[in-house]
Amino acid sequence: MRDRMKGFRELTSVREAMEKIRKTVTHRIGETEEVSLDSALGRVCGEPVKASRDSPEYDRSAVDGYAVVAEDTFGASVTNPAELKVLGRLEAGSAGSESFEVRRGEAVEIMTGAPIPRGANAVVPAESAKRVGDRVEVYQQVHPYQNVSRRGEDYRVGDIVLEKGVILKPWHLGALASLGLDKIKVLRKPKIAVLSTGAELVDPGEEISEGQVYNSTKPMLKSMLRELGAEPLDLGTAGDQVEEISEKISEGIREADAVIVTGGTSVGTRDLVPEAVSRIGEIVVHGLRIRPGKPAGFGVVNGKPVFMLSGFPVASLVGFRVLVVPALEHMMECRFDENPKVRGVLTRRITSPPGIRTFARVRIFTDEQGKIFVEPLRVTGSGILSTLTRGNGLLIIPEEVEGYDEGEIVEVELLSPIQSQKG
Amino acid sequence: MRDRMKGFRELTSVREAMEKIRKTVTHRIGETEEVSLDSALGRVCGEPVKASRDSPEYDRSAVDGYAVVAEDTFGASVTNPAELKVLGRLEAGSAGSESFEVRRGEAVEIMTGAPIPRGANAVVPAESAKRVGDRVEVYQQVHPYQNVSRRGEDYRVGDIVLEKGVILKPWHLGALASLGLDKIKVLRKPKIAVLSTGAELVDPGEEISEGQVYNSTKPMLKSMLRELGAEPLDLGTAGDQVEEISEKISEGIREADAVIVTGGTSVGTRDLVPEAVSRIGEIVVHGLRIRPGKPAGFGVVNGKPVFMLSGFPVASLVGFRVLVVPALEHMMECRFDENPKVRGVLTRRITSPPGIRTFARVRIFTDEQGKIFVEPLRVTGSGILSTLTRGNGLLIIPEEVEGYDEGEIVEVELLSPIQSQKG
Repeated sequence: MRDRMKGFRELTSVREAMEKIRKTVTHRIGETEEVSLDSALGRVCGEPVKASRDSPEYDRSAVDGYAVVAEDTFGASVTNPAELKVLGRLEAGSAGSESFEVRRGEAVEIMTGAPIPRGANAVVPAESAKRVGDRVEVYQQVHPYQNVSRRGEDYRVGDIVLEKGVILKPWHLGALASLGLDKIKVLRKPKIAVLSTGAELVDPGEEISEGQVYNSTKPMLKSMLRELGAEPLDLGTAGDQVEEISEKISEGIREADAVIVTGGTSVGTRDLVPEAVSRIGEIVVHGLRIRPGKPAGFGVVNGKPVFMLSGFPVASLVGFRVLVVPALEHMMECRFDENPKVRGVLTRRITSPPGIRTFARVRIFTDEQGKIFVEPLRVTGSGILSTLTRGNGLLIIPEEVEGYDEGEIVEVELLSPIQSQKG
Repeated sequence: MRDRMKGFRELTSVREAMEKIRKTVTHRIGETEEVSLDSALGRVCGEPVKASRDSPEYDRSAVDGYAVVAEDTFGASVTNPAELKVLGRLEAGSAGSESFEVRRGEAVEIMTGAPIPRGANAVVPAESAKRVGDRVEVYQQVHPYQNVSRRGEDYRVGDIVLEKGVILKPWHLGALASLGLDKIKVLRKPKIAVLSTGAELVDPGEEISEGQVYNSTKPMLKSMLRELGAEPLDLGTAGDQVEEISEKISEGIREADAVIVTGGTSVGTRDLVPEAVSRIGEIVVHGLRIRPGKPAGFGVVNGKPVFMLSGFPVASLVGFRVLVVPALEHMMECRFDENPKVRGVLTRRITSPPGIRTFARVRIFTDEQGKIFVEPLRVTGSGILSTLTRGNGLLIIPEEVEGYDEGEIVEVELLSPIQSQKG
């Protein structure tokens, strides 16, 4: 029977598909561009950044207080204060630390950030001291370098501050700023073309006629690309002609780093997209061991990937995760953040066909005691967007697991914050 | 002794501080603006969205195949196929489903997305059928409505598709698109003013002289605001005059929804920022049971919060988390996504003072077997940015815990992806 049925010769596992991406996608997003710190958030670091100076550049006070010789404070307490002579005062932001030399029995009043004067090796916080005329009573002992930010303790000249491929977070920008840098070289944004196929599709905002449906998959995929720092290029919607689809894909390959085509990939009577890709390149994977999204796959044209995803929004989201995300990581030589994961009690039995990785949409909620529950959402089709808007998580059932029982503890990926009520 | 030391009268717990935010911050980000789906990602839904139509608008085929009367296929198999007469073909995107009426013994060839013709109640997938002239052999039984996306199964007219306050994710935009919407009302972006204080500070990119330091905290805070969808307003750097700080804060209160002031909050000899805030409003909290970041607090001016954060980058990050994030959630009536959490084995004992919530920077890595380890990073000061750039997580030790032992399993917040090598 098998040979008589038009179908997928062989389904590819997610792992195999990722290996094939690495082998066949030769195109890279190598070019960098310089951007200001103000627009660098979320971009990918384009080259290693080394410290060109020590940070801090000098030993400086971490508190407001008195710079002292630590040994003078040994044994000091509220009942047995050490008494030191105050030589003067050092403000932050001003030179002048050289005008002081602190010797045993002496102290300099010092502000946070000011350089530690010569001879001093610790700072007594202001709240542990009391000024009495030109002397100070110290009520606490400090050890050498206590309350001192030491030269180079954050970065030393030549230290690698940022590796290539790091996705820039706020503290990375802070680290660059601490070295005086106000710009950084980042990878250019990858440009990913998106083509919808299907004569029934109408863009939102347009008039709709009988038998037509709004294209919900494309706005979703475009914003998923934006989330990854990519720039979507909209190739519009192709009708059901192989020639037209093939031309649009070629256009995408010329102008973008990759192409995503949705719809027309299922093995029905019209296997349009794989046929269109075959005309200009090579199909690498067609049919994946995933649910939903089985008909997904990819081909390669000029070393650039052409992803074939379902036209159904949820199935296309799963295909995007298992194909587009790893391919982008491969082409950009970076690693994207993962979604938060939580563990909760499954409220209902859920099954998965053996050998298939199932992406089940779930609702994650807590009861009054804060206990976390995971409720699989009932679905009839892979198009059901409301499972993502009503739910807030994904339960990924691996290939070797056939399901989980009610009451089992499962780990789920959180897509939106946990709902605090069963409601 | 206590009364003789200049210090914080009383430290406030994180929980109390959040309660005080809710009580004293009366300002709200209530105004909405309409944006296109293409620019709505990450914005906050400004009003509930109801479905104005059913989605799907008609029963449609979820696969390419044959629309049939399900009962005709009962018992069908490869060895015992059901044979049906094919009346014709229905494409997606075209009207014409009315021209067919399927009766027992009949079928209509149907494409994915096409409306189910009258009389039919299920679809046999193409790969489970074989066309023979004007007849089709069916090798699989289908139950009623199998492979049919039913009218309204995603949304029915009047269903709430999106609640106010939801942070818009790709699938939310997909859901709006499926209803034909190409715009959405979102909350306007909150504008948050940021003022640095400290005569020693120099902006990155500028020349630096002896005793000066680059301002690393502000670029970090600005990008943390951007991450939350807020728009930072840079008020520059104020010197060490209370008058100047007070005027800048007033400017921020006039033009923004909140003000963040960094530096000058520790209880040293110069308690500048709290004094500046007191002149124009009221200090609500000064001194928090957190480490690092203890000197943090906030005041209220005209119902808008003025956050006083440390000038040290890591301490300011912690203050931002415990004060600014919940205040923004309160003013925007939304809930931001949390960072991913993972569990791992602690590589070294770590302690925390009783009653204090400690935010320890850690490096999270896996060994060759994939086992997760959590290594606390040694620090000498709260300014050490490299603990965030070299590390990739936060271990938050609650007030009632005095620490964890080496080898204990701890839950940590992931700030950047897990490192796969001990390296």
